[in-house]
Amino acid sequence: MHVHGPKQKLAVALFCLATLVVLSARATLAQTPGPLPSWNSGPARNAIIEFVRRTTDPASPQFVPLAERIATFDQDGTLWTEHPIYAQLAYCLSRVPDVVAAKPELKDVEPFKTVMSGDREAIAALPMKDWETILASTLTGMTTDQFQLEVKAWLATAKDPKWKRPYTELTFQPMQELLHFLRDNGYKTYIVTGGGQDFVRVYAESTYGIPPEQVVGSIGGVAYGYDANGKPIFTKEPKLLLNNDHAGKPEGIHLMIGRRPYAAFGNSVGDKQMLEYTKAGDGARLAMLVLHDDAEREYSYGPAKGLPDTKFGTFPQDYYDLAIRSGWIVISMKNDWKHIFAFQK
Amino acid sequence: MHVHGPKQKLAVALFCLATLVVLSARATLAQTPGPLPSWNSGPARNAIIEFVRRTTDPASPQFVPLAERIATFDQDGTLWTEHPIYAQLAYCLSRVPDVVAAKPELKDVEPFKTVMSGDREAIAALPMKDWETILASTLTGMTTDQFQLEVKAWLATAKDPKWKRPYTELTFQPMQELLHFLRDNGYKTYIVTGGGQDFVRVYAESTYGIPPEQVVGSIGGVAYGYDANGKPIFTKEPKLLLNNDHAGKPEGIHLMIGRRPYAAFGNSVGDKQMLEYTKAGDGARLAMLVLHDDAEREYSYGPAKGLPDTKFGTFPQDYYDLAIRSGWIVISMKNDWKHIFAFQK
Repeated sequence: MHVHGPKQKLAVALFCLATLVVLSARATLAQTPGPLPSWNSGPARNAIIEFVRRTTDPASPQFVPLAERIATFDQDGTLWTEHPIYAQLAYCLSRVPDVVAAKPELKDVEPFKTVMSGDREAIAALPMKDWETILASTLTGMTTDQFQLEVKAWLATAKDPKWKRPYTELTFQPMQELLHFLRDNGYKTYIVTGGGQDFVRVYAESTYGIPPEQVVGSIGGVAYGYDANGKPIFTKEPKLLLNNDHAGKPEGIHLMIGRRPYAAFGNSVGDKQMLEYTKAGDGARLAMLVLHDDAEREYSYGPAKGLPDTKFGTFPQDYYDLAIRSGWIVISMKNDWKHIFAFQK
Repeated sequence: MHVHGPKQKLAVALFCLATLVVLSARATLAQTPGPLPSWNSGPARNAIIEFVRRTTDPASPQFVPLAERIATFDQDGTLWTEHPIYAQLAYCLSRVPDVVAAKPELKDVEPFKTVMSGDREAIAALPMKDWETILASTLTGMTTDQFQLEVKAWLATAKDPKWKRPYTELTFQPMQELLHFLRDNGYKTYIVTGGGQDFVRVYAESTYGIPPEQVVGSIGGVAYGYDANGKPIFTKEPKLLLNNDHAGKPEGIHLMIGRRPYAAFGNSVGDKQMLEYTKAGDGARLAMLVLHDDAEREYSYGPAKGLPDTKFGTFPQDYYDLAIRSGWIVISMKNDWKHIFAFQK
């Protein structure tokens, strides 16, 4: 292009300007794609987007002030995979050899004997009382600092048996996008899990962007004291202050947050009370259940049939029916999600 | 002023511009005065400002990332006046007539008989066990919604016996400014009180700008259930999950926040463990104690002598000595504060 006079110069300038505008519009598009890119169009994605619009548009009659925007998420089976065994239970089993090494007399005592045998079927068949013994012996007695180090070390090396990947890579990409989308719209996102609060806090910030003060879990007592150098420590006690499952979930929400959520997400009967408590509030409230119906990309169980439910969380057919009757939205992993894990993209 | 030619016009324009600059500078000054205007210059104010500079200046070796900026405040005696009786205890006493009306057989039973007599000295002399009975009978058994309504109604009408003002007007203006100053610098401010969590949450947001999820208090159990219409309710149970005083304060901080504070503020031995836990962390940590040494504008007690300490919180001389040895800063209400209450300004 040759430039001859003022008119041509102006034309060039305008052309450059137009190009800049187009380019920057494109750049903006690339930086901020539409929300929830891993979700297929459909009732689940629409319900989320409509809920956020209604509660964040100042002109909406269902507008919610910033300070009241609370969203709560179950973890196992809702934010990451829970089959064949909750990550925290895998952690507890991995700690048993150390427990037995420290107290050799336990090696012939149940349930330690069965766990040490490595017989997966026998371990899975252990009654609940034995699981409680395993949990108490591997989650209490140490300082909170020591516990954090042990969990971090385990997370850095342990691998899920099916995908051969660290557990923290088995979060659901569409749920990660949902956490971001809600936070981008002023929602405070909380984990509300039956898992141990101290356990989940170790990785919640790096894995989900959820800080420790926004992790509500089953709460064990801690005793404040001092180490040999007089430095303050907390010792984890075998005393359950809150079993954060079923009715314990809204109780934990009251205790830790003190406000009713506007949105809640779960995947099993342990989330029933949290979802009904959420939906019972005034204005626009969103309650959603993740249905595991994708045998190919993850697992199929619950109402979708296939595998048996996990030991600690079930999703029977009548719970599905209740969800539909109650206006909760069921998320089909198979139909609503483009990808399940980030590594499948 | 007459305008004649271009030069004069320019002069007028410059004059107007200069005036505008001066006026807007004044307006800016009026809108954003220096921090902590009700604090006198001195070691306490300096310590706060230096702490904030060190932990928020990105060039400082003691810089603290935004997410970790936690400051915790005791309430009674630290954020508002605690003499002659904690507001919550005054509330509980005010509820006794209703408790007795509902169960008339209690009127001849201690401690209800003494409370109904109105004899202030006899009430103050009741042993701790009787106070526990009063607390349990007036703080539990109802739904959390009912409890909130009762506390709100009481706060709207109850008056402090000395100042004849609502309790919520008896907050310390310099501490309100400190809460704002810390929040303006990215700190999340928490109340960490021996008082009831459900009680303090009723007014913490309107009184201190502290939302319910940032109130850590003594925690009573709640039971999730349903009202006659099937709507979810919480019933307050006579079950103490956490006595958030002394060692219970850092335990409550671990439970509710999961991070060690960078700054902590108290006024009695009940705050000792919270302050030592805070100071035991790495980097710059601030621990401060409010000393009630102003008999004229508020009260004088503890090491400052004068009135006896309150029933539930003491500040003996050896605690003062410990504070000085430990590098905690003692705030003299008399010397460090220009005003104590907003209504004294």
